[in-house]
Parts: sequence; C-alpha cells; structure tokens
Amino acid sequence: MPLTHFDSDGNAIMVDVGSKEDTSREAIAKGRIHMSADCFEAVRLGTAKKGDVLGVARVAGIMAAKRTSELIPLCHLLSLTKAAVDFTLLPERNEIEAVCIVRCQGKTGVEMEALTGVSVALLTIYDMCKAMDKSMVIQGIYLARKEGGKSGLIQNSSPFEEKENIL
Amino acid sequence: MPLTHFDSDGNAIMVDVGSKEDTSREAIAKGRIHMSADCFEAVRLGTAKKGDVLGVARVAGIMAAKRTSELIPLCHLLSLTKAAVDFTLLPERNEIEAVCIVRCQGKTGVEMEALTGVSVALLTIYDMCKAMDKSMVIQGIYLARKEGGKSGLIQNSSPFEEKENIL
Amino acid sequence: MPLTHFDSDGNAIMVDVGSKEDTSREAIAKGRIHMSADCFEAVRLGTAKKGDVLGVARVAGIMAAKRTSELIPLCHLLSLTKAAVDFTLLPERNEIEAVCIVRCQGKTGVEMEALTGVSVALLTIYDMCKAMDKSMVIQGIYLARKEGGKSGLIQNSSPFEEKENIL
Amino acid sequence: MPLTHFDSDGNAIMVDVGSKEDTSREAIAKGRIHMSADCFEAVRLGTAKKGDVLGVARVAGIMAAKRTSELIPLCHLLSLTKAAVDFTLLPERNEIEAVCIVRCQGKTGVEMEALTGVSVALLTIYDMCKAMDKSMVIQGIYLARKEGGKSGLIQNSSPFEEKENIL
Amino acid sequence: MPLTHFDSDGNAIMVDVGSKEDTSREAIAKGRIHMSADCFEAVRLGTAKKGDVLGVARVAGIMAAKRTSELIPLCHLLSLTKAAVDFTLLPERNEIEAVCIVRCQGKTGVEMEALTGVSVALLTIYDMCKAMDKSMVIQGIYLARKEGGKSGLIQNSSPFEEKENIL
Amino acid sequence: MPLTHFDSDGNAIMVDVGSKEDTSREAIAKGRIHMSADCFEAVRLGTAKKGDVLGVARVAGIMAAKRTSELIPLCHLLSLTKAAVDFTLLPERNEIEAVCIVRCQGKTGVEMEALTGVSVALLTIYDMCKAMDKSMVIQGIYLARKEGGKSGLIQNSSPFEEKENIL
Repeated sequence: MPLTHFDSDGNAIMVDVGSKEDTSREAIAKGRIHMSADCFEAVRLGTAKKGDVLGVARVAGIMAAKRTSELIPLCHLLSLTKAAVDFTLLPERNEIEAVCIVRCQGKTGVEMEALTGVSVALLTIYDMCKAMDKSMVIQGIYLARKEGGKSGLIQNSSPFEEKENIL
Repeated sequence: MPLTHFDSDGNAIMVDVGSKEDTSREAIAKGRIHMSADCFEAVRLGTAKKGDVLGVARVAGIMAAKRTSELIPLCHLLSLTKAAVDFTLLPERNEIEAVCIVRCQGKTGVEMEALTGVSVALLTIYDMCKAMDKSMVIQGIYLARKEGGKSGLIQNSSPFEEKENIL
Repeated sequence: MPLTHFDSDGNAIMVDVGSKEDTSREAIAKGRIHMSADCFEAVRLGTAKKGDVLGVARVAGIMAAKRTSELIPLCHLLSLTKAAVDFTLLPERNEIEAVCIVRCQGKTGVEMEALTGVSVALLTIYDMCKAMDKSMVIQGIYLARKEGGKSGLIQNSSPFEEKENIL
Repeated sequence: MPLTHFDSDGNAIMVDVGSKEDTSREAIAKGRIHMSADCFEAVRLGTAKKGDVLGVARVAGIMAAKRTSELIPLCHLLSLTKAAVDFTLLPERNEIEAVCIVRCQGKTGVEMEALTGVSVALLTIYDMCKAMDKSMVIQGIYLARKEGGKSGLIQNSSPFEEKENIL
Repeated sequence: MPLTHFDSDGNAIMVDVGSKEDTSREAIAKGRIHMSADCFEAVRLGTAKKGDVLGVARVAGIMAAKRTSELIPLCHLLSLTKAAVDFTLLPERNEIEAVCIVRCQGKTGVEMEALTGVSVALLTIYDMCKAMDKSMVIQGIYLARKEGGKSGLIQNSSPFEEKENIL
Repeated sequence: MPLTHFDSDGNAIMVDVGSKEDTSREAIAKGRIHMSADCFEAVRLGTAKKGDVLGVARVAGIMAAKRTSELIPLCHLLSLTKAAVDFTLLPERNEIEAVCIVRCQGKTGVEMEALTGVSVALLTIYDMCKAMDKSMVIQGIYLARKEGGKSGLIQNSSPFEEKENIL
C-alpha cells in the first residue's frame, strides 16, 4: 500500500473518507517517560497527596486528543465519544507509562488522537518535572490496539518488552 | 530542587516568572520514529521528488511549537523569534530523526516548545505513513541542548548512542 | 447519581457516550451583568445607534459556544446546528441579561455550550465597559431549560426571582 | 469616561495601547458556584481523595486565562507571567469560591484574564457535577483587586458580604 | 431571499440547520495572487527543487479549511471528509492560482471552508514572498462550484476570463 | 533578495528575528468584495438599522488578525497593540471595501496581520450574504501602507485605480 496522503502528483491531501462507513472505532496508544530516581519519587509522592503531576497531565492529554486535527495537518476532525488517559508507575525503571484510550463513531480511526493524547500527557509531565531533572527522555510511543473500520483489529506488542533486561 | 509547578498547598500553578530577566534563550530537542523498511523507503523517495512527508511534518512541527502554551497547561506563552524543524534519515535503522530548534527572548526557556515541535513533527510522519505501516514507534524524545537563563548551558547526550549495538 | 466524570479509580475521564442515541437537543442558559447607572446608559444608547457593545458580545458568545470543548476539559466536541445569544436590558436594576440558546443533534446535551456562550458574552460586555465601571458583577448564570436525551425536559426558575425585592 | 472600545464613528476597535508603559500588573477575580448539599459533599470528598473535580477545574481555569484574547474580541494578547486558580469550600452555603490571580508585565491590565480564568473554572465544576445536580448557579463573578498601570490600585468588596444574611 | 444570518430583530444568529438533511456536499473555490516576475520565478523554481513555497501554502490552506468555524463567526462546525489545495502557475501573468476542494456529509455546505482554504493558502504565499515583493495583490477569490444540499449544483465562471486581455 | 523563509537546504523555517530591534510598526491592508445590487442594498440597509453584517465582519476581522500566527505557518506571534477594521461602501460598484489597520511594537512587521484581518472580514461578509448571492468575488487584497522596521515606509497604490473605467 502506497502513502495515501498524496494525490497522483505527489501533493499532500486530506484523504477522502466520504465513502467510508460510520463504525465504532477505538484506539489505545502508550508511551513512557524516563526520569531520575529523585524526580520519579517526587511524582509518585505527589500523586498520593499534593502536587499531582499526573492529574494535570491527564487533563492535558484528554484536551489534546480532542484537538488532534488542529495539530496534525491531514487528520480529519472527529467527534470523540470517549477519551481517557491513565498512568502506570514503573518504579524499578523510574518510568511512567501513559495510556490513552479514545473512541468515536466515524469514518476514520482514532489512532492519531490516542497517540497525540499520550504525547501531550508525557510532555506535560516533562514540563512539570523539568526544574528537577533536565535529562528526561520520552520513549516508545506506539499504537497498542486499534479496532473498527476496514483494517479490523490491530495489536502491537510493547517496544519495551524484548529489551527489558538490557535497558 | 522540588517540583516548582505547585504552590505550598500542592495546587498546580503557572510559575511566576515576572522577576526573571528577558534573555536570549535557545533549545534544541530531538526524537525519532522507527518504521518498516518499505515505509522508510517510501518516505525517502517522496522527499526527493513527490509525496513530501517531511515537508508536511516540518510545517506541523513549527506550527505546534508556536502553540505549545495552548497544549501544555502550565507553560507560559512565549513569542518565539525562531522555530525550525529538520530531519535526518537513518537508513541503517529505518529511522527518521527530527530536530527542532527554537529561540526566544523572554523570561523562561523554550525547551517545551522544542520538545512539542519534535513530538508533533513525528506524529505527523506517523499519520502520513500509518496506512503503510501500523507498527511504528516514536522514540527517544529528549532535550539535546538548552542555553540562556539562570541554568545556563545544558547539554544531554543522545539516549540512542549507548545502545547502538543492542537495539 | 455519583460524579460521572471519573473512573473507578477516581481519575478524570471524558464520559463514553458512544452507546447513546443521536437525538435533537436544546439548551437555554441565562445570566446577568450588573453595572453602574452611567455605564448601563452608555450601553443602552450604543445599542440604539453607535458603539454597539451588545452586538460585539453576541458574536463573542456564539463563537465561544462553538469552542466549548476546547475550554471545558471533559466536554465532548459537538457540531452545533444552532447558536444564538440575545440580551434583555433591565433598566430598573442596571443589569443586562444574556440568553444563549444552542441546539444540536448528538449523543450528549448542549448545556455547557449554552452556559459558555452566556459567560463569554457577559465577559465581553465587562471588557468593553471596564474603562467606565470597575465594579461590575456577573451574576446568576444558570441553565433555564434543557430538552432532549435521556433526562428529558429540565427547567429551572430564575435565581433572581425570589430575591427581586431585596437585591 | 466614555466607552473606549469604539472609534468616533461607533465602530468596535481594539484600543491602541502602543503608547502605554510596560508595567507590572496583577488582577485577582473571584466567583462562586452554588450547588445542592449532596453535590457539594461529593466535590468535597473527591478533593480529599479521588475524583478531584477542583484539580481539573484549576487546570481549565489556568488554560483559559492564557487564551482570553481568543475569546474576548477586543482583548489584547498578553504574555502572562503567572496564572493560578484556587478554591475555597463554603460548606454552610454549599458553594465553592474560585479565585484566579494573574500577573503580567505589559501595556494593559489582566483583569479580563483573571475573570475568564474564574469563569471557566466554575463552568468546569458545573460540567463535572451536572449529572448530579441540574440546578446549579454561577454567582458573583467580580474583580476583587487590580494593581499596576494608569488606574493604580483598585479593590472591590465581595458582592456576597452585604447579603450574607438574606440569601 | 433575505439575509439569513439575522433573527427578526436583526440580531446575528447561527442559522438553525437542525431540520436539514445530511447530504454529500462539495465546494470548489479559487483565487489568485499576482506578484513580480522575479518573485514568481523564485516560487516556480522552488517548487521544482528546494524552497517549496507552495508545499507550505498547501498545508496552511488545508489546516485553515478545517478551522473555518473558528474564524467565521456564524459558520457551523463541519467534519470535513476531504480537503485539498492545489496550485496552477500562470507564468504569462506572474500569477499563482489556488484551488481548494472540500467535501463533507452534513447539513450545510462547505463553500466557506473552500473559500477559507484558498484565502489562507494565498496569504501564506504572500507571507513567504513578502521579503522579495512588497506589492503583491490577492485577487478574484470566488466559489467555482458547489454541489449538494437544497440549492443543488451551482457553478460560477472565473472573474478573470472576461478581462484576460485588458489586465 | 531571495526567499527568506527557507534555510540553505531549501527547508521552510520561521525566520530568526532575534537580532532585530523592537520598533513601532504599523500596517494597513485593504480588499473588496463585489456582490449583486440586491445583496449590496441589503448590507447597506442592515448597517443603518438591523442585520448588521459589517458589525459582525468587523469583529471577525479583528479576532483573526490576533490569531494570524496560528494560520500562517511561518508567521511570528506578535502582541498587537491595536487592531481595527473598517468598511467603505462603494454603491456605484456594488462593492464593500474593508480596511484593516494593525500596530505592534516588535521585531517584525504586522502586514500579515492586517492582510489576514481584511481577508477574514471579507469572508465573513461572504458568509452572511451567500444565501442571497452565490456569485460574489473577493478582490484586490493588498498592503496599502507599512511603516516601521528596517524597510521603512512602504506604500502601494490601489490595484483598482488604474482599472476604474474598465471593470
């Protein structure tokens, strides 16, 4: 399958989805941010009581998912029926994993919305921690699961699993 | 240094930068997207002639950098004096590296703008390639260099270098 | 009924409305701004001839209603089929009442759109009058009427009526 | 002083502030939302542990304050140096008071930013509580304090104080 | 037919399209920018190899078409199923013609989206060429074709054709 | 002078204005919309009493001028100190001329803001009149005057003047 976002002259276009069916669609994207042990501990403690980094990042991720079509030039505007962002703390690696799940009933899938939600949630964590750790890395943003539409169910394994012992 | 984006009650705040000096500030952020060999080849060919994925991603990254304060809740609005996004093709790894450089003269640094520019540029590549490769991974988004302001020059080495042989 | 914008762990989510029906929905919100007699008179005169404060506020309210999902973090994007803002001058109280009516055909109601339209219309009046009166108060923003969807017709009486004699 | 947002023909204009000095400016705005006792209790409990309505509303208010010039037609774009939103629970009245403080160094004041921050924070509380209480009222949004610029210090007393016994 | 964007009191409203059918709609708008021969040549050369003015303008036009309802106060938000911008070089006149085609399935037409796409694409060309030519003119933005909805097929001839010899 | 919005590799960039001085800058742009005699008359009458097309278009133009950097990819964000849009009715031609004047104190000029303000004001007139006239044409958008910054005073004559007799 060739690149679909170009016409026959090679010009960028927003793909015509007018003939596609409205179906229920869901996408789940994941990604991580790696930080110092001190910074990780500060986020972990704040979540439990005050200084809730993840609460702010969750809101930012949801709001960004809704505005994906403003950011990604050739993305269609979709009216999301659900958007949620959640986090898993991975203390043995000083990493926080963000998961964004998005649903809609439309003509095209919501993977870009889920990936954008994860990206902005992780960037927000970065922003709130950057005074404490100036060497964080955002890693492994990928589409974990996608369902609905022509291509049916798609599942990807984590890019982290195979490397768990060596990183 | 504790988390600075909270007041003494633990409530999220936009940090007061009113007493900071206006200085020249620059930040350079980098990140990569990994894709299949076929997809990488399609992007590479398009760049040379028609179907310019990277041209679209460059515009998206620059536009996103300018709107960072709308996406990241506690980020200050900054009037950027420069924003640029560039790409390096890494054919031996089927990866594209995005670099975003941002400058401003202001009271607070532009690392979030550079990181947002890189993130949205990579998401845009993902969007334009996703019909061809459904297993891409965005990797290693980090601050390569930051200059200006109180913390002076900060440089981080690539998160990829040390693992070059094992990934 | 508990708070619906949280999952079972207490994390904020955008509620899943995917299983809801598309129905015709309407909401009417109201609110007021109280100002000095001089300022009220200036607005009243401008409406009749030149210096049309309410004309500008009407446009601002309609435009804000359309962008509600960008402002209210967990609000769904809705494609409004109608939005209108109107004003009633209450000279005996030096108050201007704004009414916003919004309609859509969708899975969730438009009360937030109507309330946002009223709020921004009143804030716009505030902005345009603030050089003349620095002690205005925005009051009594409430949902007057809502129809469509699972909860059917909802009507609230004005928060002002009962106090009419004492304020 | 006449209405300043119109030219001599009565046409709406963005006032020319080019000849004004850049000075430190601060504004504090306040407002309240009144709700049922059950709903108030749900918000109060959520704040302490899970289901943090006020945490989400705080982020929404800060983000809206930054975007005030997009909402209020004749407002100047200002680069805020600080924005914060805080809440006080008033259990004897089943009300939540929002306070927004905004600072900038610029040619024009930030009262609209503070008022917009309060308004959107209260609307966000409304949104998250509306499944539980369909008769909430947003009340008494006003400028509590403003400092800096030509008009110097301005302070307004609460519109609630004088009526405390009768409401 | 009278002006439809006002109620019976002459107040601006967003027209109620709730009773209209969802139909396939398409609009094609065109417009031109006239520039100096040197500037035209620079754009033409850049398109072929490096310095791709038209590639950037194409992305800008598509992105603007998606955001039309934010710019045009009484425009409905539409979920576009397709948006594309293309250019024709007219070397004998030192003009570039932009064409924007937009499609949706909705209750109201997409001519404003197509016209906005053309306008912003031409403004973007202007921006990128303005260091070289300070006397460019944007000309003849019009609706070339519109199909779908109550008014059926509408076609307008180019405003340029009749004047080809005299301009 | 070559095209300045590209680096030496031909990649689009936001030009670095960091070394430029902050100076007072002003730009005035103009443009027209041509419509049928009936439609022109409806706008003219509405301006005088009810159905104020131009009042809405004025607000839209001012708001768009403030958001120019979101629309034009390589435009710098500027904090405008003034923005105004005015209209002249040209009954002998059934045309409305829009004029947008913008000022700022910054490192780069405001011609794009003025041109964007004119364009969106004219598009708004189009939107509000399109039910009555489906063959309107937007014409002759140009920079009438620009002052401040390195290039000093620039003035362009109207593209309409020379053709006054033949159009």
